[in-house]
Amino acid sequence: IGSNSAETDGQTEWTNVQKKIIPWKNNTPSLDLEMVFEDRAAKLGKSNSRLIVVASLIDKPTNLGGLCRTSEIFGASALVVGSLHYIQDKQFQHLSVSAEQWLPLVEVKPSQLVDYLQQKKTEGYTIIGVEQTAKSFDLTEYCFPEKSLLLLGNEHEGIPANLIHHLDVCVEIPQQGIIRSLNVHVSGALLIWEYTRQQVIKQKQQK
Amino acid sequence: IGSNSAETDGQTEWTNVQKKIIPWKNNTPSLDLEMVFEDRAAKLGKSNSRLIVVASLIDKPTNLGGLCRTSEIFGASALVVGSLHYIQDKQFQHLSVSAEQWLPLVEVKPSQLVDYLQQKKTEGYTIIGVEQTAKSFDLTEYCFPEKSLLLLGNEHEGIPANLIHHLDVCVEIPQQGIIRSLNVHVSGALLIWEYTRQQVIKQKQQK
Repeated sequence: IGSNSAETDGQTEWTNVQKKIIPWKNNTPSLDLEMVFEDRAAKLGKSNSRLIVVASLIDKPTNLGGLCRTSEIFGASALVVGSLHYIQDKQFQHLSVSAEQWLPLVEVKPSQLVDYLQQKKTEGYTIIGVEQTAKSFDLTEYCFPEKSLLLLGNEHEGIPANLIHHLDVCVEIPQQGIIRSLNVHVSGALLIWEYTRQQVIKQKQQK
Repeated sequence: IGSNSAETDGQTEWTNVQKKIIPWKNNTPSLDLEMVFEDRAAKLGKSNSRLIVVASLIDKPTNLGGLCRTSEIFGASALVVGSLHYIQDKQFQHLSVSAEQWLPLVEVKPSQLVDYLQQKKTEGYTIIGVEQTAKSFDLTEYCFPEKSLLLLGNEHEGIPANLIHHLDVCVEIPQQGIIRSLNVHVSGALLIWEYTRQQVIKQKQQK
């Protein structure tokens, strides 16, 4: 209960300086976020995506700042971070180029992720882990649902085992080089792009 | 002549510590690079791509280091940089995670780019500028030739006007957000990925 109240204080404090931050857990858990989506889409004069990028496992402010910029540019619904304090980090700000002012940010601590993912499942989101596993889909073959939630792994440990079985699917990026895996910001950007590309093509086919 | 001899010294010096660096201009200009492609492909046990990533206009070591890592992972033929001295930069090294040891690096100064692009045209490469222009193709609609050369723009100025008319085509990434354009490393990564994705699909169709 002590840590919950600290969290609430943190959110209240942040709400004063950062209007786009939405608490994910309150009396009407999903209504607020849905309203923000529609509000923002209306302001942008276009239909908004239903892509949520979850970066709660990521530690480096540079990666989070970069993901913030990239997510905003591709019109993601929200970026979920492990702590809203990252926003004050100078490296974050340097990389985000103020995208945090336009992209809804949600704080979900790593310890809250299981609950958060389950809630999003009940809202119809497909939970997609960006991770190499024996059952992962190749990104060149995966077809993203409209309501997609991307869970990105930690820079060093990827997605921990206890979260893997809460995922609906894993997707991996086929890599040919000798060097170990892609930077997590780049991995995230490629999945965000691929989701966007598929949505653009679907929209053209419907016309 | 003074600066040319400095260049040559620089290359000689670098050749001692960095075996994968190839001078692009010598008596047999393209033979060396072709041999390196085939050698590397053979060592990796796979067919190598014919994608050249030209980052000579990029200034920031972090972007260059990141592009080095991403280019290596997707098996690009070479990364072209404005100066090989970037390799000694700690920020470059931090981001490249030693990819420069596996990816052929070529030094082409910005002032040499026109000559370099023309040479690559004669070798059958399509010169693709990553830039928003009135005639740019949308990345969701562009089909990459097998021999593709990507020219990335400077962080602030993009691709200068005097180079634009040496390009065969411009490709732009459709962006929906309020924030200005994507980071150049991310832009580059998306085009490298899209080239790779198309090549993978072509290879599957041929089987």
